[in-house]
Amino acid sequence: MFKERLQKVRNLNPLIHNITNYVTANDCANILLACGASPIMADDIEEVEEITSICSGLNINIGTLNQRTIPAMIKAGKKANKLGHPVILDPVGVGASKLRCDTALKLIEEVKFTAIRGNISEIKVLALGKGRAKGVDADIEDKISDSNLCAAIKFAKEFSEKVGAVIAITGPIDIVADKNKAYVIRNGNVSMSKITGTGCMVTAMTSAYISANKDNFLEAVAASISAMGLCGELAHSRLKERDGNVTYRNYIIDEVFNLTGDKLEKGAEYKEY
Amino acid sequence: MFKERLQKVRNLNPLIHNITNYVTANDCANILLACGASPIMADDIEEVEEITSICSGLNINIGTLNQRTIPAMIKAGKKANKLGHPVILDPVGVGASKLRCDTALKLIEEVKFTAIRGNISEIKVLALGKGRAKGVDADIEDKISDSNLCAAIKFAKEFSEKVGAVIAITGPIDIVADKNKAYVIRNGNVSMSKITGTGCMVTAMTSAYISANKDNFLEAVAASISAMGLCGELAHSRLKERDGNVTYRNYIIDEVFNLTGDKLEKGAEYKEY
Amino acid sequence: MFKERLQKVRNLNPLIHNITNYVTANDCANILLACGASPIMADDIEEVEEITSICSGLNINIGTLNQRTIPAMIKAGKKANKLGHPVILDPVGVGASKLRCDTALKLIEEVKFTAIRGNISEIKVLALGKGRAKGVDADIEDKISDSNLCAAIKFAKEFSEKVGAVIAITGPIDIVADKNKAYVIRNGNVSMSKITGTGCMVTAMTSAYISANKDNFLEAVAASISAMGLCGELAHSRLKERDGNVTYRNYIIDEVFNLTGDKLEKGAEYKEY
Repeated sequence: MFKERLQKVRNLNPLIHNITNYVTANDCANILLACGASPIMADDIEEVEEITSICSGLNINIGTLNQRTIPAMIKAGKKANKLGHPVILDPVGVGASKLRCDTALKLIEEVKFTAIRGNISEIKVLALGKGRAKGVDADIEDKISDSNLCAAIKFAKEFSEKVGAVIAITGPIDIVADKNKAYVIRNGNVSMSKITGTGCMVTAMTSAYISANKDNFLEAVAASISAMGLCGELAHSRLKERDGNVTYRNYIIDEVFNLTGDKLEKGAEYKEY
Repeated sequence: MFKERLQKVRNLNPLIHNITNYVTANDCANILLACGASPIMADDIEEVEEITSICSGLNINIGTLNQRTIPAMIKAGKKANKLGHPVILDPVGVGASKLRCDTALKLIEEVKFTAIRGNISEIKVLALGKGRAKGVDADIEDKISDSNLCAAIKFAKEFSEKVGAVIAITGPIDIVADKNKAYVIRNGNVSMSKITGTGCMVTAMTSAYISANKDNFLEAVAASISAMGLCGELAHSRLKERDGNVTYRNYIIDEVFNLTGDKLEKGAEYKEY
Repeated sequence: MFKERLQKVRNLNPLIHNITNYVTANDCANILLACGASPIMADDIEEVEEITSICSGLNINIGTLNQRTIPAMIKAGKKANKLGHPVILDPVGVGASKLRCDTALKLIEEVKFTAIRGNISEIKVLALGKGRAKGVDADIEDKISDSNLCAAIKFAKEFSEKVGAVIAITGPIDIVADKNKAYVIRNGNVSMSKITGTGCMVTAMTSAYISANKDNFLEAVAASISAMGLCGELAHSRLKERDGNVTYRNYIIDEVFNLTGDKLEKGAEYKEY
């Protein structure tokens, strides 16, 4: 039940260590607070092990990565693994450069991730070691639709088995899968793609969900992805004529702040496969 | 016609590579999305050439520059030049330190800019190699008014000829000039100076306009500057009693999101010189 | 009188040099503008001396510190000291890692701070050289209440005497003290802790207050802390059913923008000890 997953985040108030980009760091911090967790951002190699040690989970996001922060990501990830902390990866724009691709693949090799969340193009790059990616957005040809849904679920399950992490592929239709089971989630609003950082934000929130729900990572990730989509729907219904993407962003985080287990349970739109 | 310039951004959805400061990166990303473009931020020297290669344009902003990112700016700029991509420079606070001044002058020497946007104090520093600048704001003695407008237009045209870029000087009165022609734009609201990053934001948006309008850079820059000012006016008219500078910032980006070619054409206030 | 302290910020429009974290830099810049000051963010060691020289005050915040920016903080601090500029320290999460603790202690050793602002856990770490800290939030056992208020005031006065800076301990009850006198301030709203960066923001605003009120640092700090709390109350009263922490953040900065000396004088809740 997604309801219990949300409730556990609110009850346990997990502290999340974020090594993330400077574009959306503020939104990620606020959405973590909104969902009931607490954020700390720290990326210097001298402190990441200590920081991650006082936290319950680790969120690694490769947007605006640089050569100073890459070793810090690996060091923090290894430490979190040792401590048994859930770790999530957001491979932002992984198809856009060799540096991002090499970094993401090295991270997956050296760190055991609990979950990986990206758009379909990003996840394909990770799975196939190559792919097309128009910057940080999904390539049109990659989009998941009802006509290729079965293949996409199969792909997600297989990649999950290979890498040992729950795989979350977000987009108009979201797929959350481990090797045995997948959730296909149909929450969300198409306008969410007109806000910077909705991907980063849902990954940050998901890090809180897995940190507070170590008994069932798959359901925790699915609950978080569904919660974000639902908040996107609710926030969209609040928009008035002159509101645009920034007010929409603000309202989404506000809805996360006000989301209850009952609202999530009622609004979640998903099927299991 | 400014209308067509805006419409082309919406039609072509240009992907813009931003090497920019961490203070306003989120607002720049959201305004790019709002105007119809897509942003990617990347500043590591190992990836900037690749990133700029998959984009349509490059936005270089020297706010919070550091010695790691300066060579990345130059490398990205040279690559964009080779590829024929429009490149814009925002010389944030260029008069405030030798590092910023040297960096901006080196950038201008090594990279061919399509456009440069700054306040009058910043543009003077670039043109004269010196100048006064109170941090990131224009010095009062520099302000363009009706009494010195002709001299300012002449200055902008001459600097444009010298540097080979469209020059946009923004402030209470905006001047957008190439060597032959200038637009004097009177859109905007004085309260825009109470928001951090309006300069960075309009430069980011202008990078989208020039990337989508390679047939007429001068008009593209003028359309973008006018659009930002107009959105500043429209957003200001929405403010209620207790709203302040942050709600104003949000509303400006919202207005950019909702701006149409017709609204821009009707609201643009400019004369050609 | 707090009223005059606020008015001086608006009259003098101090330019503040910020070496701060990338999570809340945008909010800090906007709150500085909102209160009547101007921000400039600059952290490269090659330019910090020059930047601080053209400013009236310096704000050093160790959130997302790294080995590149630490020497820049020290260099800027020493320069500000030489010039007689007020300098403030925000020891964000100082108990969370050795790097943060060592950096903060080194800063205090090498730079003379006018004021230091943190939560009780952070200030305890600075004073005792150790302590508990759950990331960037205060530890529950540390919380100041009416039952330990006298001891907390004594602690703040003694630490102020030792370090030679006005000490601001913020939380449900705020204490602002120099060696002789303390203000106990009871403005604010408990939900402010659900917004990222309220601490960073009040420190940034306080840097403006001390820079514009060099005749009475203690009262300047108290006025700023009270002003932030009051704006937290006023903003909270504006929230409607579906608003959450991001709208709350926006409204707080908006209230700072609209705050007058009279409103502050009337709304400030404090006692002197």
